[in-house]
Amino acid sequence: MMSGKHREVNIYGDIKLFAGTACPELAAEVAAYLGCPLSGRDVTLFPNDNLFVRLHSSVRGQDVYVIQTTSKPVHRNLMELLIMLQTLRLDSAARVTAVIPYLCYARSDKKDKPRVPITARLVADMIEVAGADRYITLDLHAGQIQGFFSIPGDVLTAFHILTDYTKKLLPHMRDPVVVAADLGFAKKGRNFAATINAPIAFIEKRRSGGDDQPAALTLIGEVNNRDVLVVDDEVDTGGSVSQAVQLVKACGARDVYLIFVHPVLSSPAEKRLSELPIKQIITTNTIPIPPEKAAALQGKLKVLSVAPLLGEVIIRAHQGRSVGEMFDE
Amino acid sequence: MMSGKHREVNIYGDIKLFAGTACPELAAEVAAYLGCPLSGRDVTLFPNDNLFVRLHSSVRGQDVYVIQTTSKPVHRNLMELLIMLQTLRLDSAARVTAVIPYLCYARSDKKDKPRVPITARLVADMIEVAGADRYITLDLHAGQIQGFFSIPGDVLTAFHILTDYTKKLLPHMRDPVVVAADLGFAKKGRNFAATINAPIAFIEKRRSGGDDQPAALTLIGEVNNRDVLVVDDEVDTGGSVSQAVQLVKACGARDVYLIFVHPVLSSPAEKRLSELPIKQIITTNTIPIPPEKAAALQGKLKVLSVAPLLGEVIIRAHQGRSVGEMFDE
Amino acid sequence: MMSGKHREVNIYGDIKLFAGTACPELAAEVAAYLGCPLSGRDVTLFPNDNLFVRLHSSVRGQDVYVIQTTSKPVHRNLMELLIMLQTLRLDSAARVTAVIPYLCYARSDKKDKPRVPITARLVADMIEVAGADRYITLDLHAGQIQGFFSIPGDVLTAFHILTDYTKKLLPHMRDPVVVAADLGFAKKGRNFAATINAPIAFIEKRRSGGDDQPAALTLIGEVNNRDVLVVDDEVDTGGSVSQAVQLVKACGARDVYLIFVHPVLSSPAEKRLSELPIKQIITTNTIPIPPEKAAALQGKLKVLSVAPLLGEVIIRAHQGRSVGEMFDE
Amino acid sequence: MMSGKHREVNIYGDIKLFAGTACPELAAEVAAYLGCPLSGRDVTLFPNDNLFVRLHSSVRGQDVYVIQTTSKPVHRNLMELLIMLQTLRLDSAARVTAVIPYLCYARSDKKDKPRVPITARLVADMIEVAGADRYITLDLHAGQIQGFFSIPGDVLTAFHILTDYTKKLLPHMRDPVVVAADLGFAKKGRNFAATINAPIAFIEKRRSGGDDQPAALTLIGEVNNRDVLVVDDEVDTGGSVSQAVQLVKACGARDVYLIFVHPVLSSPAEKRLSELPIKQIITTNTIPIPPEKAAALQGKLKVLSVAPLLGEVIIRAHQGRSVGEMFDE
Amino acid sequence: MMSGKHREVNIYGDIKLFAGTACPELAAEVAAYLGCPLSGRDVTLFPNDNLFVRLHSSVRGQDVYVIQTTSKPVHRNLMELLIMLQTLRLDSAARVTAVIPYLCYARSDKKDKPRVPITARLVADMIEVAGADRYITLDLHAGQIQGFFSIPGDVLTAFHILTDYTKKLLPHMRDPVVVAADLGFAKKGRNFAATINAPIAFIEKRRSGGDDQPAALTLIGEVNNRDVLVVDDEVDTGGSVSQAVQLVKACGARDVYLIFVHPVLSSPAEKRLSELPIKQIITTNTIPIPPEKAAALQGKLKVLSVAPLLGEVIIRAHQGRSVGEMFDE
Amino acid sequence: MMSGKHREVNIYGDIKLFAGTACPELAAEVAAYLGCPLSGRDVTLFPNDNLFVRLHSSVRGQDVYVIQTTSKPVHRNLMELLIMLQTLRLDSAARVTAVIPYLCYARSDKKDKPRVPITARLVADMIEVAGADRYITLDLHAGQIQGFFSIPGDVLTAFHILTDYTKKLLPHMRDPVVVAADLGFAKKGRNFAATINAPIAFIEKRRSGGDDQPAALTLIGEVNNRDVLVVDDEVDTGGSVSQAVQLVKACGARDVYLIFVHPVLSSPAEKRLSELPIKQIITTNTIPIPPEKAAALQGKLKVLSVAPLLGEVIIRAHQGRSVGEMFDE
Repeated sequence: MMSGKHREVNIYGDIKLFAGTACPELAAEVAAYLGCPLSGRDVTLFPNDNLFVRLHSSVRGQDVYVIQTTSKPVHRNLMELLIMLQTLRLDSAARVTAVIPYLCYARSDKKDKPRVPITARLVADMIEVAGADRYITLDLHAGQIQGFFSIPGDVLTAFHILTDYTKKLLPHMRDPVVVAADLGFAKKGRNFAATINAPIAFIEKRRSGGDDQPAALTLIGEVNNRDVLVVDDEVDTGGSVSQAVQLVKACGARDVYLIFVHPVLSSPAEKRLSELPIKQIITTNTIPIPPEKAAALQGKLKVLSVAPLLGEVIIRAHQGRSVGEMFDE
Repeated sequence: MMSGKHREVNIYGDIKLFAGTACPELAAEVAAYLGCPLSGRDVTLFPNDNLFVRLHSSVRGQDVYVIQTTSKPVHRNLMELLIMLQTLRLDSAARVTAVIPYLCYARSDKKDKPRVPITARLVADMIEVAGADRYITLDLHAGQIQGFFSIPGDVLTAFHILTDYTKKLLPHMRDPVVVAADLGFAKKGRNFAATINAPIAFIEKRRSGGDDQPAALTLIGEVNNRDVLVVDDEVDTGGSVSQAVQLVKACGARDVYLIFVHPVLSSPAEKRLSELPIKQIITTNTIPIPPEKAAALQGKLKVLSVAPLLGEVIIRAHQGRSVGEMFDE
Repeated sequence: MMSGKHREVNIYGDIKLFAGTACPELAAEVAAYLGCPLSGRDVTLFPNDNLFVRLHSSVRGQDVYVIQTTSKPVHRNLMELLIMLQTLRLDSAARVTAVIPYLCYARSDKKDKPRVPITARLVADMIEVAGADRYITLDLHAGQIQGFFSIPGDVLTAFHILTDYTKKLLPHMRDPVVVAADLGFAKKGRNFAATINAPIAFIEKRRSGGDDQPAALTLIGEVNNRDVLVVDDEVDTGGSVSQAVQLVKACGARDVYLIFVHPVLSSPAEKRLSELPIKQIITTNTIPIPPEKAAALQGKLKVLSVAPLLGEVIIRAHQGRSVGEMFDE
Repeated sequence: MMSGKHREVNIYGDIKLFAGTACPELAAEVAAYLGCPLSGRDVTLFPNDNLFVRLHSSVRGQDVYVIQTTSKPVHRNLMELLIMLQTLRLDSAARVTAVIPYLCYARSDKKDKPRVPITARLVADMIEVAGADRYITLDLHAGQIQGFFSIPGDVLTAFHILTDYTKKLLPHMRDPVVVAADLGFAKKGRNFAATINAPIAFIEKRRSGGDDQPAALTLIGEVNNRDVLVVDDEVDTGGSVSQAVQLVKACGARDVYLIFVHPVLSSPAEKRLSELPIKQIITTNTIPIPPEKAAALQGKLKVLSVAPLLGEVIIRAHQGRSVGEMFDE
Repeated sequence: MMSGKHREVNIYGDIKLFAGTACPELAAEVAAYLGCPLSGRDVTLFPNDNLFVRLHSSVRGQDVYVIQTTSKPVHRNLMELLIMLQTLRLDSAARVTAVIPYLCYARSDKKDKPRVPITARLVADMIEVAGADRYITLDLHAGQIQGFFSIPGDVLTAFHILTDYTKKLLPHMRDPVVVAADLGFAKKGRNFAATINAPIAFIEKRRSGGDDQPAALTLIGEVNNRDVLVVDDEVDTGGSVSQAVQLVKACGARDVYLIFVHPVLSSPAEKRLSELPIKQIITTNTIPIPPEKAAALQGKLKVLSVAPLLGEVIIRAHQGRSVGEMFDE
Repeated sequence: MMSGKHREVNIYGDIKLFAGTACPELAAEVAAYLGCPLSGRDVTLFPNDNLFVRLHSSVRGQDVYVIQTTSKPVHRNLMELLIMLQTLRLDSAARVTAVIPYLCYARSDKKDKPRVPITARLVADMIEVAGADRYITLDLHAGQIQGFFSIPGDVLTAFHILTDYTKKLLPHMRDPVVVAADLGFAKKGRNFAATINAPIAFIEKRRSGGDDQPAALTLIGEVNNRDVLVVDDEVDTGGSVSQAVQLVKACGARDVYLIFVHPVLSSPAEKRLSELPIKQIITTNTIPIPPEKAAALQGKLKVLSVAPLLGEVIIRAHQGRSVGEMFDE
């Protein structure tokens, strides 16, 4: 009497796509993938540093996606996202999804000492109170951050994008070994290594003095005479990976590749990375890399796009189809 | 059997005072008034533009006040406030009060056209979700903004500070008249005029074309041969007051005084104001005026301190005593 | 691949229209405009003063609009609205919109002295807790009240209805001038004047003694030998407009018209207005005017209907189409 | 090291007592019991039917109790209570307790047919959203209503007051039997009977036709030649008890006493009761009985005061002492 | 212009049916009635007593119903339901309905003494916080429990199923009389009696000593030489009904039938009931009866299925059609 | 004027200590440490598997701590905790703190595949909705779980207890090395190693086939001829540590010590551990170890008590003193 078969209806009205000002190229790529233009909106920064948003057309009863990464300038980009979310909600959108390729403050996710914040939870609360019904993001620093939200979300990973690309390089490598630059990344590093069928080694950082004392680094595992893939989820100022590369080199590594999802690349990362004996830097466009930084890394930098991934997930979310089956899960 | 008489107990534990980085001088003045030092905390801005806060001592079971104005850089200052509020809440403070001399985004308080935000409500929601139990602020653009909060608060006014100072100048003025620079300030302007026992006039701005067409200004009321007090709640870029001063001068005004609570003074306000035929600019320290701007207005600028007002309200809030009776209300 | 074009589907199930007992004529007009009959319901007032509501048919999965104004008897009408909202929610309506032509307690929107309520916020909270998903209302006393709600809403204005009608009268007027009866209405009065291309004047009320002392009125601007349009958002007991009309007459006004949205008309408003030298009273039907009051104003009273406006907005809200574009916005 | 012994400190600041306008005599009695005067407040009903409240003094950090019953006029009394609660919360009271001797709408506590409200839950939600931290009430129609609140409360009973009084009458009665006037009161009727050590009988009401058909009444149990105590939680229009008294009389009852907690007494209750062959009507002052109604029942009416009960509970709630032990529980 | 006629669209996406592990047969019957198979899911109990749930397919944008009764083992079954609800919500179901044939803890619905819980409210809160948008349940111990939920729900009754079956037995009975085994069931017992057009009698239980003293039972009404239908909402250990059957037998009852909705049947209920002189035990399958218990009652037990009722309500809830009209209401 | 010095007042009334039935010995030890007896309460499990709680004395206005671990039977223990929390809240406790030595479901803290729950967040939500104002717990599986709560809490660690004990053993060990049994514990393992000043090695588990294929284990780092300390946060069935011990033994380890905080020890953990060549098993009493399991591990098992830690934190929480400074932080 009732059919369990799936109808392909758009249950939340039409799709509508907006972008903040933080990652216009990525947003345009997603729009192109979807074949759905970005909707017009004004984003104005007044002389008093207040942002103002106005939508060019109504979103009543529609299924709206706002693409905004929360990289530098972090607070402005975050506030822009929040204001857009509230504007869409007050304009009676049927459903509002925040698409945040890089979620700021994800490293402030626990109280590892007393009297400090858990800012990632605060950010989740702010996104909810502004009016998001759902969110889509990529490679959170810790998977647990999904539990900071009470709204549902799609926490995606660019892992397959990075391993697929790496697999193509493998025939040109000699005895590759994966090195996790940070012990907090040990488990994900192991997954990376397992996927490309390579062994893994770890770098242990140990601080004997206070927080301001230099840390002693130890390599645990074998890299001698091997090509090394240093992996991490993000590179900020490049301090840690810089030490990691020097250490593996000192331990006899041959070619070194640096692989990470989020190119935060705060200064002086571009300088540090450009001076290191790295063969290739493989990352994604969850954060736009300013031209001057990209120039500094010229020839070494390979940026893979997450736009098809985000686009496909948006389609499926809109049509009520499985996202998991994209990954054979 | 039960006494209705008031005991002077501190029902919420001890008082503890923190300050963000936005208005250190005002915070220090308030601390001095209270005879209670500012508690130590680290506020760090990391290279990736993320803020980090750490309190130097525990606030368990204490009655905490955080002084932070939300002037430029607005988003950083706001986020700093929010992170401090969350940190204090997670550290189990008994009560957390946000003391915000100038509340940002207060002009985005209604949807006067479709598809725009009510950002002041968003800011109120953010302050609540971060963990404030109460708030104290000064001269909101519209009194209704108090209704955006569901937590209780003390919305104070620097009105008495400004009228008290003005009254002292009156013997030196000739036929003073108050001019409301904006019709939205008409009612408060009337109150100002009534308090100093002067008549009032209004400036009507009317736009015949679109938003980008220049507006026609009309003076309604009498200023000829009179000393004029142009009053408003804040001065941003100084465009409106600049036109107002020119208009009253053209209508025969003698000396012109400019009186407002919040010195937002976005550029080129300092240039505009310095070039105007103004006798004195009277304002408060709800927002710190950078030295270079203060220098540009040298000789004309009179900054009255709201520190004693904030300090007294904090004491009374802490001790559970009436704030209203400070104003004979 | 995805179409951004708008489909005209009713995303929230069928439309269903209910009315409380407060404004049956207006509700019937709206129903006629929509071509959708009012759904049956019982509203019973028991001898113990408790209200009881029963719907005649199910509203599961439907898009329901309840029309109920909150004029006198205010508390009964408000409670009736709240009970209907809860009943609809508990009966699993897909979406419930409260259509409130006149929102009670809108003048209690800020704490202008200590230890008083912000009842408009309380009313907003009550409407939300009862189960409204959205609301539609007309000409709030202050636009900021929209920020008291956390649900989205359409705050409409009968402004165009009043100015359109007024424009037709203009050819018969001589040198018309708009007079704002209250300084709180100064800005909206200016907009009215600008739309009909007339100058504006203000009435300033100043109280030298306590709240119970009579206030001194001053006219600021020119009305001599002109036709005067006294404008306000509502007329309650008619005291203020009565004084205003007498003042402009004393200042040489010719014909006087009284224009306002909400005919609260608490006694003795009908007596006061009937005795005043007013040529015409122009208002709307957001509040029903009892026959005996209408009779007292016979010949002077022109009531314009807001039913087409409400009806059109309901259609658009139901179909997910823009409301803003009704006003070329 | 830690003492488990109880200190008698007032942990929520000083006690402060307010009363609405619904039951001034009861409020005065409670105040007298507490030896704590009622705090001053203005309650004004404006011509537009809007209520306004202003407190005469600050309640910051104090432990406030508002006494307001919600009898007729129900909606005005309820709204008055809600506005007072919000005012107290916004004035930063440490704790606000609503003391509601009679809670309106308690009979609308379940959906016994489709498409009707559960208004008692709505009322509970309204009391919470207005700002009550706790509530105190008496003899809810169903004990489950306590579960409608998410705030804690003291749901008291005047049961002991009524049975204590009844026990004093017992020596003058012959073979007393308790009769539950309504099957919904069967269990509480049994408790009453058990406390005074009398048997119980029931009146069964059965409707063969629709809701508007008269119901057939059957007495189940024995009343012949016995004194009868008809008990219920409230008497509204007196229809049911009127039938009950006539039925027990027809079944041979001797003297009939009518005992109930809440004297709702909607007209024509006073007429009905005055015409019935009842020896005594025993009730409480949770609802004030207007003088003309009391006069109609002259000689038969015995009103027992709940003021000492409410007063004692307020003291204990304020001092953090057990309420249960008042009843040896 | 707008049609009020009902379209039969499935507004919440496709229907999807899940079952927990508590009542697999009933769930299968409901699925068969709907013609919609149960969706696959893993429910795993790990050695550490933690439950784990995984859905076999995506539920994005779908209208999901989870069938899970909360009988013994109560806490495991409840937790399983809650985890399934959260999983469905986090997987972005459009709407999640908890179908709970028997709701646990319904007897803990009020504080009849101090310092005890209202666990039924806690259970309602847990179901809401886990993510249910709606719920469907049968014959709550008290109708008021519906008011413990703030989400809408369908509280159904198996009353018609039981009375329809009973009516078929009536021609074979002699002078049947309904007996309410508990005074709390008096009103529902009366309704049962009225529907089958029989008289009613009551059993009064009175405890003279403490809670642990045996209670004295009195029969109020007539059963001599009559067939007796003992009715209640559930039978737990069978202690009360056991006493009731013995009492009516002692009072001269002929055949005794035992009729109740929820067969909780905690041990030693099966033993007690099997030893009683009962002609038939009529109940439903809201709780599965273990084979060994069913065997003990062999020949006496008649289990009526609620599956068609639940199935029909699910269809109507899904299609947005009235549930009330199933019962001519 | 105001003193910033700390008064040692108990701001939340008196302390009151309750215990559930899950860890009576630990609760008694904490009570002894505090010098404050456990308050009386009944916890009853009815035949229908429903729990019932009754407090022996009032907790009005007091600062209550409930000690209940959530080990096996997990769901019963969790529900017992929740019911106690609600009972305390409804009895108007001033503050309720849940003291949960071992928090169940902490391993279900992220969605590492689609369509699974985040049960730890659900548990946090349940604890909050039941009424806890704060919580105290020990060694969460992931520190991020603290961000699942919106209430403040003290997440403690038994780390110092374990390392202090281990340090005393060090003089008797030869070349000790720490081995992290799971890569997810890599960072905490490193901290352990750094504290006792030993090197670290890792065990990498890699699965080539599906979830049901055996995993290949690799040791990364050096253990040959060394004493090995296998560390983890908890031991469940002992499968992983069993493999770990065998691997390090095969790699030449000398004495092996097993160190973990939470002795979950689900069967057949006791059998596995008893058969392994382990010198000592060092753990804590966050979960009671049943006598038969303790017996199976006789001679090897060292259980360190967390009671002084919990007791000290409760005192400090009650008195509003810093917890962080217990750890020199």
